Amino acid sequence: VARILNGGLSPSDIAHLLESSPPRQRAVLWNLVDKDLEGDVLQYLNDDIRSYFLSKLNAQELAAVIEDFESDDLADLLQQLPDAVIQEVLDTMDAQDRERVEEVLSYPEDTAGGLMNTDTVTVRPDISIDVVQRYLRRHRSLPPMTDSLIVVNRKDEYVGVMSLTRMLVSSPSATVREIMDTDVEPIPVTMPDNRVATLFERYDLISAPVVGDNGKLLGRITIDDVVDVIREDADHSLMSLAGLDEDEDTFAPIFRTSRRRAVWLGVNVVTAFTSATVIGLFEGTIQKVVALAVLMPIVASMGGIAGSQTLTLVIRGMALGQISRDNLRWLLNREFLSTILNSLLFSVIVAGVAVAWFGQPTIGLVIGLALIINLSIASVVGTLLPLFLKKRNIDPALAGGVVLLTVTDVMGFLSFLGLATIFYG
Amino acid sequence: VARILNGGLSPSDIAHLLESSPPRQRAVLWNLVDKDLEGDVLQYLNDDIRSYFLSKLNAQELAAVIEDFESDDLADLLQQLPDAVIQEVLDTMDAQDRERVEEVLSYPEDTAGGLMNTDTVTVRPDISIDVVQRYLRRHRSLPPMTDSLIVVNRKDEYVGVMSLTRMLVSSPSATVREIMDTDVEPIPVTMPDNRVATLFERYDLISAPVVGDNGKLLGRITIDDVVDVIREDADHSLMSLAGLDEDEDTFAPIFRTSRRRAVWLGVNVVTAFTSATVIGLFEGTIQKVVALAVLMPIVASMGGIAGSQTLTLVIRGMALGQISRDNLRWLLNREFLSTILNSLLFSVIVAGVAVAWFGQPTIGLVIGLALIINLSIASVVGTLLPLFLKKRNIDPALAGGVVLLTVTDVMGFLSFLGLATIFYG
Ligand SMILES: [Mg+2]
Ligand SMILES: [Mg+2]
Ligand SMILES: [Mg+2]
Ligand SMILES: [Mg+2]
Ligand SMILES: [Mg+2]
Ligand SMILES: [Mg+2]
Ligand SMILES: [Mg+2]
Ligand SMILES: [Mg+2]
Ligand SMILES: [Mg+2]
Ligand SMILES: [Mg+2]
Ligand SMILES: [Mg+2]
Ligand SMILES: [Mg+2]
Ligand SMILES: [Mg+2]
Repeated sequence: VARILNGGLSPSDIAHLLESSPPRQRAVLWNLVDKDLEGDVLQYLNDDIRSYFLSKLNAQELAAVIEDFESDDLADLLQQLPDAVIQEVLDTMDAQDRERVEEVLSYPEDTAGGLMNTDTVTVRPDISIDVVQRYLRRHRSLPPMTDSLIVVNRKDEYVGVMSLTRMLVSSPSATVREIMDTDVEPIPVTMPDNRVATLFERYDLISAPVVGDNGKLLGRITIDDVVDVIREDADHSLMSLAGLDEDEDTFAPIFRTSRRRAVWLGVNVVTAFTSATVIGLFEGTIQKVVALAVLMPIVASMGGIAGSQTLTLVIRGMALGQISRDNLRWLLNREFLSTILNSLLFSVIVAGVAVAWFGQPTIGLVIGLALIINLSIASVVGTLLPLFLKKRNIDPALAGGVVLLTVTDVMGFLSFLGLATIFYG
Repeated sequence: VARILNGGLSPSDIAHLLESSPPRQRAVLWNLVDKDLEGDVLQYLNDDIRSYFLSKLNAQELAAVIEDFESDDLADLLQQLPDAVIQEVLDTMDAQDRERVEEVLSYPEDTAGGLMNTDTVTVRPDISIDVVQRYLRRHRSLPPMTDSLIVVNRKDEYVGVMSLTRMLVSSPSATVREIMDTDVEPIPVTMPDNRVATLFERYDLISAPVVGDNGKLLGRITIDDVVDVIREDADHSLMSLAGLDEDEDTFAPIFRTSRRRAVWLGVNVVTAFTSATVIGLFEGTIQKVVALAVLMPIVASMGGIAGSQTLTLVIRGMALGQISRDNLRWLLNREFLSTILNSLLFSVIVAGVAVAWFGQPTIGLVIGLALIINLSIASVVGTLLPLFLKKRNIDPALAGGVVLLTVTDVMGFLSFLGLATIFYG
């Protein structure tokens, strides 16, 4: 197995194998991984698993492992370590490397600065392609994902990019200035990573230059890291709706899993008791008409379904940057009106079945009205809640679902049992 | 506005603007878009909106619009048209272009064949870099996303790839054979698109060659289209859990929205009545102990929360290709045991509150036991259901949530009210 691991598999394959293994096998596999490969494998592991393995290395082992890391990957890895260890590791590095990593580390992880790599290959505008080619041939290799050279002036300020393909179809006597593209806007180092991802997606970029406030070139972001951002953000929306973290290890051990999930169950126990309290207000009515207890979950759950559809659509629209002040009113109207239409349709169906079941016209009237009320509220809350949460810097994907379902449960029980109390007075 | 649209914005920006606009503004904006840009803009629109605009063009207009399309984008677009129109459009094209598109169209949309582009630049292994460079300089431009040239033999069979960066650091007298990479496995034309995406993510690829059964080179897949696959698949998981389509237009008109959502509400009305029927079996018990009606939604909803967490984790694990026969038993055990731990914890809490609230020790016992039963079932169903659905070729993200919540509601009411009937019998 050890030979297969270290011979036949790439570091990313090994990382995938580790991520797909339960804890015990994972530890065995990790011990079989060649020391030289450990660093590469660590780069590809998800945050949770990586910090577990990192915690077992001392500063010296760490220094050996990270020798050939690129500055962006190194920064990612260091960010998971305690400050004291970061310092120790930085001390083992040579001055130039240290400076590069400290540069990347100085920006928040979720910005262009945290995503960028300092391994740029730059050229001046006034030299010829011929000279560029001779200059490149002096390299033993170019950094991965180099699809273009970055053109800078003498003050190291960004001027434009020259794509390699453009260079290859141009005459050797042409100058960089003649064939470079100055329309490419450099990415400000403070841009949030999800906006960077949108730019890469929209303009089909492979790499993009990153500049500071002063226009100086700081580094370069590459599509492989952007793909990871896209995957993480998408995972985040999906996992958060269930109260999970996107870095959650699929094969985390029992106790870690229980502890994390207990938090979410705890939140939901509170909201469940809130709905129960609402029902408790109407014990007398239920005592009189037991059919109410049978039908009340229908009103709550239909509200939850309608609200979740609106909520999910709005969360996705926000993630794609489609929703703004200009179209919010239209969206709210559309959600409200189309939910009203459906609530009319389903209140007739549900009321019909309820009347046929219990033989009481009153119960049909009550459940029909309650459905219309709960679905209307659900559509308004589903639209506005994520925007409101985002404004308060609360993650809509994490909190949105719980809050929405609490509202639809409470309003469902309240409207149904409240109306019943009035009609059965 | 027309000038801003056609002067300052790229086609992908215009597409984004259209996607972010309600229907009426969208129609106005579309009329302002320059005829020459229409084709480019259409490429970037999502399926729903694109097919709307396509339906308004006749075959002649279509032919004009698609003039400069790449073969993969053209195939994507044609796949949305009625067969008769496809034929009309193909008839307007010259023989070579038509052949290329028909090639791509002959593979299912969600495979490597449907994703590939036929615009490869190929070289033979025995020529020198110098000759390659002269050959490239005869081109006016290279296809977008060209990071490497594909090496083929005389029978057009795939041999390896030569990266442009490698070529640029090599001596002009070296041959292609000396610097090409023969380790890169070509992608079989029948590979599903999500496996292609995994390969691109794992190996940080920019482009990859696609071959047929016979080893002949058919085309090339590029990262920009793979990013779209990743985004779509992620969107699919998120949207499907709420019964929405990933191509759903955020600003679809009222009637289209209502009609689509009515289907999902209809499914849920059936499941809601199923739970109601279960409650109906216990009308007598509820009549005796009204507190049961107050507490029963707690058991159902806690089961739903625990089950959703498991379900979401497994769906994500499946999407990442982490779950296999080897680790399924471990995963099932972990989910079961960690859920049992939490159900013990929360049954004590919930039972305590229930006893304090209603002053009946029996009700604490009943709700505590019911919670343990429902959460255990939820963990098993949450783990196995998505795998079972996938085996039956049913989309787990779409059907998983509804089925799971039906099970946790039914089992929640059944265990709670059933136990109550026994204990209060
Ligand atoms: Mg992020
Ligand atoms: Mg980083
Ligand atoms: Mg794109
Ligand atoms: Mg990188
Ligand atoms: Mg990376
Ligand atoms: Mg993370
Ligand atoms: Mg697909
Ligand atoms: Mg396609
Ligand atoms: Mg990658
Ligand atoms: Mg393409
Ligand atoms: Mg494309
Ligand atoms: Mg689609
Ligand atoms: Mg519910």
